[in-house]
Amino acid sequence: MLKKVLIANRGEIAVRIIRACRELGIRCVAVYSTADRHALHVQLADQAVCIGKPAARDSYLKADALLTAARITGCDAVHPGFGFLSEDADFARQCREAGLIFVGPSPEAITLLGDKARAKQTMQAAGVPVIPGSDGIVADLASAKEIAAKIGYPLLIKASAGGGGRGIRPVYREEELESQMRTASEEAASCFGCADVYMERLLLHPRHVEVQILADSQGNVVHLGERDCSMQRRKQKLMEESPCAILSPALRQQMGDAAVRAAKQCGFTNAGTVEFLTDGKEFFFMEMNTRIQVEHPVTEAVTGIDLVQAQLRIAAGEPLGFTQSDVQIRGHAIECRILAENPAENFRPCPGVIQGLYMPGGPGVRVDSAIYQGCQIPPFYDSMLAKLIVHAPTRAQAIAKMNWALAEFLVDGVDTNIDMQLELIRSDAFRSGTYDTGYLAELEKKGGAGNA
Amino acid sequence: MLKKVLIANRGEIAVRIIRACRELGIRCVAVYSTADRHALHVQLADQAVCIGKPAARDSYLKADALLTAARITGCDAVHPGFGFLSEDADFARQCREAGLIFVGPSPEAITLLGDKARAKQTMQAAGVPVIPGSDGIVADLASAKEIAAKIGYPLLIKASAGGGGRGIRPVYREEELESQMRTASEEAASCFGCADVYMERLLLHPRHVEVQILADSQGNVVHLGERDCSMQRRKQKLMEESPCAILSPALRQQMGDAAVRAAKQCGFTNAGTVEFLTDGKEFFFMEMNTRIQVEHPVTEAVTGIDLVQAQLRIAAGEPLGFTQSDVQIRGHAIECRILAENPAENFRPCPGVIQGLYMPGGPGVRVDSAIYQGCQIPPFYDSMLAKLIVHAPTRAQAIAKMNWALAEFLVDGVDTNIDMQLELIRSDAFRSGTYDTGYLAELEKKGGAGNA
Repeated sequence: MLKKVLIANRGEIAVRIIRACRELGIRCVAVYSTADRHALHVQLADQAVCIGKPAARDSYLKADALLTAARITGCDAVHPGFGFLSEDADFARQCREAGLIFVGPSPEAITLLGDKARAKQTMQAAGVPVIPGSDGIVADLASAKEIAAKIGYPLLIKASAGGGGRGIRPVYREEELESQMRTASEEAASCFGCADVYMERLLLHPRHVEVQILADSQGNVVHLGERDCSMQRRKQKLMEESPCAILSPALRQQMGDAAVRAAKQCGFTNAGTVEFLTDGKEFFFMEMNTRIQVEHPVTEAVTGIDLVQAQLRIAAGEPLGFTQSDVQIRGHAIECRILAENPAENFRPCPGVIQGLYMPGGPGVRVDSAIYQGCQIPPFYDSMLAKLIVHAPTRAQAIAKMNWALAEFLVDGVDTNIDMQLELIRSDAFRSGTYDTGYLAELEKKGGAGNA
Repeated sequence: MLKKVLIANRGEIAVRIIRACRELGIRCVAVYSTADRHALHVQLADQAVCIGKPAARDSYLKADALLTAARITGCDAVHPGFGFLSEDADFARQCREAGLIFVGPSPEAITLLGDKARAKQTMQAAGVPVIPGSDGIVADLASAKEIAAKIGYPLLIKASAGGGGRGIRPVYREEELESQMRTASEEAASCFGCADVYMERLLLHPRHVEVQILADSQGNVVHLGERDCSMQRRKQKLMEESPCAILSPALRQQMGDAAVRAAKQCGFTNAGTVEFLTDGKEFFFMEMNTRIQVEHPVTEAVTGIDLVQAQLRIAAGEPLGFTQSDVQIRGHAIECRILAENPAENFRPCPGVIQGLYMPGGPGVRVDSAIYQGCQIPPFYDSMLAKLIVHAPTRAQAIAKMNWALAEFLVDGVDTNIDMQLELIRSDAFRSGTYDTGYLAELEKKGGAGNA
C-alpha cells in the first residue's frame, strides 16, 4: 500500500482524499495557498505545506512547488483530485520522473483522452458509438462545408483541446458556418493555446449520461453504472443522479459495455468516466475524464464502493478484487451541489465568511464539504461549498429525502443556490425524469430557477 | 397514511422523527419545555407547542399536556420516541381513548412486556430460552434460598418493574442473599413504586445482543438482524455494532427466530427489540423493549430499511410489504454515542453552550443529532449530544472509519466523551471483538477509558 500521499488540491475533494487515506492507513500531506491557511484540509491532514500565493497559477497549478512539497515531506504518491492539474499529462509525467506514483492513469492515456479528436477516433476503433462528425480536425472552410453536408444541421464546432464547455459553437444553418467556425477557432486558440477545431452533429434535447470505470494495472476493467448529469447550467453540472431515470436495462448494459471497451482501448488505469450523450434510444461517446469526478458520491451510494479508496489501491498496484458481476446497483442516489453564488444576480459567486451553518444529517444523508462555521470562502477558487448526497430505496424516496435535506440546509453570511436547488428538486421536470441538458437554459429564459 | 403526528419527545430522536415524517409527507408537531424553546426540533417541525417547565415531569412526561397539544393542532397520531412516555402503557391507552394513533404497540403488549417477570413467563411459553431463575416474583427469603440452591451462584436479584439497570443486585454467595434481597426490594420500591423482585442466574462475561423486530397489524413479523450493545458503562450503552462480531450464522438464526416467536407470542406490533444475553454459545431472553431504540441506526445501515418510517407506516395500518427473506445484512455498522460529560470527573454531565462545532461527514458517515453551533445543552435531560454512525463493507473498515470520524468530531464549550470513544475504538478488546458487558467496568478499575 502507499505510505504517504501528497494531495495536490484543496476544498472538499482534498478532505475527501484525506478521509480515504485515513481509512487505508496512509499518511497524507495537504498543500495550501496563503488564502487557504485556515482551510479544513490543512487542519485535517497529517502535515501541510504552503505552496504559494492565492491565485491558482501561483500555487495549486505550480507543478514544481507541488513536487518539491512531495519530496521534502517524503511522499511516495500524489493525488491530484479534480480540476487544477488532475488532467495535466505533463504533471503526471513529472511525478513519474520524480519517482512519485501519480494517482490516476498514465500520462499517455491522459494525453490521448485529452485530445478530443484523437479520443473520438480511438473510440470508433473500439466499436464505441461516436456522434457523427468530422473525422478529426477540420482543415478549412471548404472541407467544413463538405462534412456539414454529410452530417447535417444543426451541428457543433468544438475546440480539439477543449473542455468545460468552452470553445464550442452551434451552427444551425449553412450561412452561419463560416463565422461560427472562425469564432470557435479563435476561442480555442485563446483558451487552450491551439486553434484546431472539429465538427459533430448537435443532438437536440440530449441527456448527459456518464459511466464510472475502475481499471487496475492487471488489466481488469469494470463499470459501476451510470450517472445522469443533465441538470446543467451553462455546461456546469448542478445536480446528478444514479441510476439515470430513463435508461432501459438493455441500453444501460450497452453503455456499460461500451465504457469498458473504451477504457481497455486506451490502456486506461485507475478511475475514469466515459461521458455519453443519449436520447434514451441511441448513445454517443462525448469524452472520457481521466480523474475522480465531483459527482462520484452518487455512484458510491448505489454501489457501496469507495471510489477514492479504489483509486489509491489501484495506484499501489493492487488488483480490483471484484468482477463486473459483483457490482450491484442498490436504490437511488441524488447529489446537489451547494454553491456560494447568487441566482438572483446572474449566479455571481459570493465569497465571504460563513457566519452561521447548519448541515443536515440523518439516515441516507451524506455531506461532503470543507466548510465550517466561521470559515472564509476565498474569491480565488470555485464556488462549491458542499455536496449534499442522499440515498434511498427508490427515486421517489430519494427526491423526498433531498427535499427535506435541502430545506434543513442553512448557510448564513454568503448567498447560496439552495433555494434554486429546492425549486429544481420540486420541479415537474425533475420529478418526472424528463429533463435534458437544455432544461435549465429554457427555465432561465422563462425567468425561473432563481431568476424569478 | 397518517396526516399529522405529534412528536412527544425532544432532542435528536424528535429530529429523527421529523425527518421520517417529511419523507412520508406527514405534517409534524413538536412539543417543548421552556428550556427547549430554541431547540432544533422546535425549529424544524411544522408547528411547535410549549407544554411546560423544564423538569420532565412538568413537560415531556405530562400526558394531559401532550394530548391537549395533539388535539389543538389536529394531530391524528402520537410518536413517543424513546425514554419519557414511550413505554408507558397508560399513555398509550390515553392516546387510544383520545382517538389518536399511538405509534407503537398496544397498551396491552406494553403492560405485558413492562412486567419483567410476566414477560419471562410469556417467553418461556413461546419456546424462547430464558435465563434459569425464579418462576416469577420471589415471595420471601425462604423461597429465595430454595430457588438459589436450584439455579446456583452467582445470581442476580432484579426489580420486577425495573429497567435501565436500576434495582439490580448481584449475589455471589448465600451469605449475601438476605441483605442484597432487602436492598434490591427497597430500591425497586423507591425507583418503580413496586417492591417485587425476581431472581436469575448471573452470566459471567456475557454479551448484550439484541434483535430488531418489525411487526405489522396484519400479523407479519420479521427480524432485522442483531445489534451488539455490550460496550456499556453502568448499564448505559456507549457503542453499538451490527452484526455482532462473535455470533455464528446458526446462533444468529436461532436468535432471530426466537425474537420473531417472542413478538408473535405477545401480539406485538410496530418496532421492538428483543434483548438477549449470550456467551456466543447459548442465549437467554432478557427483556423486550417496545419502542424505537437509540441504537436503531446501525440496523438501518446494514439493512437499508428506515425503521422510523416503518413505525409510521405500520401505525397507519400498512402491511410490511416485505418478508424475512427480503432482509439482507450488508456490511458492518458501528454507532458511538457522543455525550456531554466529563470522563475525567466521573462522567459528570456537562450542560452548557456549544461554542464551536464540527461534525464529520463523507462516505458511510451518518450523524444524528439536534445540536448546532451556539445551541444550549440544558441540564434537565440526558447528556447525549449526537450519535455518530459509520457503515463500511467490513468490520475492520468500519472501525477504521469510526477512528477518523471520531478524530474529526470537534465540540467546544462543553466536555465530551469523544476522547474516551477514541480510546475504546482503538482498544484491542473492541478490535478483536472480545469485549463483554463487564469490559468497561474492568477498564475503569484499571484507570483506563477516560479515567487515566
